[in-house]
Amino acid sequence: MAGRIANEQFRSKVMSAADAAALIEPGSKIGFAGFTGSGYPKEFPVALAARIKEERAKGVDFRVDSFTGASTAPELDGELAGADGIGFRTPYQSDPVLRNKINDGSTYYSDIHLSHLANQLAYGFFGDLDYAVIEASQVLADGSVVPSSSVGMNRTYLTLAKKIIIEVNAWQSEDLYGMHDIYYDIATLPPNRPPLPITHPGDRIGDKVYTIDPSKVVAVIETEGPDRNSPFKPLDEDSKKIAGYLLDFFDQEVKAGRLNEHLNPLQSGVGNIANAVLAGLLESDYENMTSYTEVIQDGMVDLLDSGKLTVASATAFSLSPTYAEKMNDNAAEYAKKIILRPQDVSNHPEAIRRMGVIACNGMIEADIYGNVNSTHVMGSRMMNGIGGSGDFTRNAIFSCFVSPSTAKGGAISAIVPMVNHVDHTEHDVSVIITEQGLADLRGLAPRQRAKKVIENCAHPDYKDQLLDYFEQAQKVANGQHTPHDLTKSLSWHSKFLADGTMKA
Amino acid sequence: MAGRIANEQFRSKVMSAADAAALIEPGSKIGFAGFTGSGYPKEFPVALAARIKEERAKGVDFRVDSFTGASTAPELDGELAGADGIGFRTPYQSDPVLRNKINDGSTYYSDIHLSHLANQLAYGFFGDLDYAVIEASQVLADGSVVPSSSVGMNRTYLTLAKKIIIEVNAWQSEDLYGMHDIYYDIATLPPNRPPLPITHPGDRIGDKVYTIDPSKVVAVIETEGPDRNSPFKPLDEDSKKIAGYLLDFFDQEVKAGRLNEHLNPLQSGVGNIANAVLAGLLESDYENMTSYTEVIQDGMVDLLDSGKLTVASATAFSLSPTYAEKMNDNAAEYAKKIILRPQDVSNHPEAIRRMGVIACNGMIEADIYGNVNSTHVMGSRMMNGIGGSGDFTRNAIFSCFVSPSTAKGGAISAIVPMVNHVDHTEHDVSVIITEQGLADLRGLAPRQRAKKVIENCAHPDYKDQLLDYFEQAQKVANGQHTPHDLTKSLSWHSKFLADGTMKA
Repeated sequence: MAGRIANEQFRSKVMSAADAAALIEPGSKIGFAGFTGSGYPKEFPVALAARIKEERAKGVDFRVDSFTGASTAPELDGELAGADGIGFRTPYQSDPVLRNKINDGSTYYSDIHLSHLANQLAYGFFGDLDYAVIEASQVLADGSVVPSSSVGMNRTYLTLAKKIIIEVNAWQSEDLYGMHDIYYDIATLPPNRPPLPITHPGDRIGDKVYTIDPSKVVAVIETEGPDRNSPFKPLDEDSKKIAGYLLDFFDQEVKAGRLNEHLNPLQSGVGNIANAVLAGLLESDYENMTSYTEVIQDGMVDLLDSGKLTVASATAFSLSPTYAEKMNDNAAEYAKKIILRPQDVSNHPEAIRRMGVIACNGMIEADIYGNVNSTHVMGSRMMNGIGGSGDFTRNAIFSCFVSPSTAKGGAISAIVPMVNHVDHTEHDVSVIITEQGLADLRGLAPRQRAKKVIENCAHPDYKDQLLDYFEQAQKVANGQHTPHDLTKSLSWHSKFLADGTMKA
Repeated sequence: MAGRIANEQFRSKVMSAADAAALIEPGSKIGFAGFTGSGYPKEFPVALAARIKEERAKGVDFRVDSFTGASTAPELDGELAGADGIGFRTPYQSDPVLRNKINDGSTYYSDIHLSHLANQLAYGFFGDLDYAVIEASQVLADGSVVPSSSVGMNRTYLTLAKKIIIEVNAWQSEDLYGMHDIYYDIATLPPNRPPLPITHPGDRIGDKVYTIDPSKVVAVIETEGPDRNSPFKPLDEDSKKIAGYLLDFFDQEVKAGRLNEHLNPLQSGVGNIANAVLAGLLESDYENMTSYTEVIQDGMVDLLDSGKLTVASATAFSLSPTYAEKMNDNAAEYAKKIILRPQDVSNHPEAIRRMGVIACNGMIEADIYGNVNSTHVMGSRMMNGIGGSGDFTRNAIFSCFVSPSTAKGGAISAIVPMVNHVDHTEHDVSVIITEQGLADLRGLAPRQRAKKVIENCAHPDYKDQLLDYFEQAQKVANGQHTPHDLTKSLSWHSKFLADGTMKA
């Protein structure tokens, strides 16, 4: 265990998580490591939550502003939110306890594009950062810090924070050393920033480690705990169908000469449908594919193992326990094919547009005109956040959104007259896929899109209702570009809130 | 006049606009030059419209699909739309006749980001382009073509179209030669595209001319007519107030150390408020400013003349008649400080984000949570289009949206509970300004934004009504992240359609 902290200055700062938590003042702004449940601090947040509870029992209103990479885990968001300890949170979350705090109004949440945060923080839009609390896999003798299973915002937090707390997690493989690519030139603020020199997902352009000011390190905590790795569910029929439509679409695009036979670099969201797409690619004839994405999940590892995917660039892992074990056992080998980058590089418009990444992300709902809602339930309630979907969607060569056509046992249609919140505008959505089929919206005007979306993607239970809306809207609208009946456009959502179903 | 066409092969193709129009088949896809009323073909579209009317009188349904740079002029969009000759149109328009055709349902319009079109067309998403119809200021002896007062999509249309028609316009100054920067490497399709080598608005990276395949040229038309240059109205009080708030905001940002004393490169939309901002900058203490924008308008020329602006990069002019004359008289001098680029370069996310451009654009309305509608009137009716506002807004270091707080003599509030169409999501809007004041939304959660927007930007006539909505929404919403009452969120627009006013 001592071998994980090879630098004396760091070793001298080793303390318990409770002692480290005692350093924090109410109102502190803290940048936490953590992205899709990997590479987050495991013990400090739990200790901080305990301290917050104690202080609150004494009548002190103790809250912190919490910045992360993206979603974290019960030990971080869950514990701190459970202690009512988060006053403000950005840029993405998916924790059930925190979600409730956001939606009951006790936590302010700023849902922003993952590629934006580093710039905005460095420019001072969020004020000064007090602490960076980062997980590392080891500290080298020269004091450089080896990242663990996610990079996320860490480079930025370590650079900007006044003080640094590092958890060194012995559960993480020491062989992760060499997998990361920490690019510092992007921290040069505009207007003086150089071009991002990535032209291929496999390009390495930075350092293997974080270089930090050791005098800022106020605590080092030794931990040994696994990431929040949850087993993937077996692929369901709807996911397989959706993946099938997408793969057929790829075939069509290759046949038409619009994509080359290795496809463009792939980005895919996290979850069952994404895993089904990756499983489909594994069985496909495509070879020498690449990935420029946010997160490495199980299916991506299978593709790398098969040799069909030559390289995967991301900012974090999101693996099942079995695959996380496999990764730890073979990290040295995987480091030849996997690159983990800061999220302002993994999600950078510059690289995504230049390489013509193919984007595929989940959604909550789409409307008949091709606007997509990724974040809100019935207008007001935050689910998770936009994450990196906007970074990829806007800059992809084409962007796909996928969802089963219904939710809540059929009571909710994922295809609606008007989305209850817009995260991706009609200008940014190329393809919509449900288990019913695929609607290719490229180059179409809104009324043309409506016919395709209803015909190809809506569940049969809702098709007539959607056609009725579309027809009625054309009758009463003040213009035929995007015909809407504003007295009814959000009535499906209101009806669900009142009656528990969108069905007429 | 002959001196304008120094190449024999081009000279041999000189014919009348009517003869050129006779070459076109119904259903042709035509890429027209033209951006904000400059550099569009002056005679060919009029002749084509006449031919379409004749053919229609004979019972032939003659329509073409029209692609442009952005908005054009009565001689192009107006004539062709007036002849019912446009079946499909993209990517931006502002012509009253065409607007009516779009909104009565006779023309399909695809409203897309200006930076997206070249890529999507080259990738084949719109099918094959039959014709490029371009305006030039001259043709050189070697057959290279000198652009006129806009570049827009011309490089792409000239490269992709099967046949080319060129208007050589003697009204345009021959001294425009050297002002343009036609970058071809960006036409290398992803995934093999190199980085865009622009790190400063003044960087020249391309050619002065279009290089085309002379065998594709089927007609050359000699013209002599001015661009659609309309006089700017004198600055009104509201525009001056809005400009004042924005300039105060710049001062504040410089004082706080978040902007340097020359500001970041400026982008500004077209119109009265933009001109007021430029006039304000002229009177300010800022020196050595730069501009990386879409359009050069009068105020920008004044800033260049004053020496306070050192360079302006754009894709087109949008000048008043007086300023257009001045430009033509002094083009050789202005060519040292003005660079006109293809719109996939002027609007490229890569350059905009790298240089941290400050974006300022007009809007139709904003909602209390910071979503912006730039395109639609009361949900269904298209006004103009999103243009380049999305390219700049998403990638700017911060993005400002400006509008008077009311329209139609106070019957419409520009601040509403929920926008009737979303073009810029809450994730992309930094600052909202009306003549009432400025709301800085950076780093805020939705409920925090709502208070600021209502308090700072809403017209007094609507403030209580907005506060009532916000209060009521918090009472009935299914979540407090973005509290909405979906039964009332669009009722202001419905009320306007029914009663002619949003006032309760």
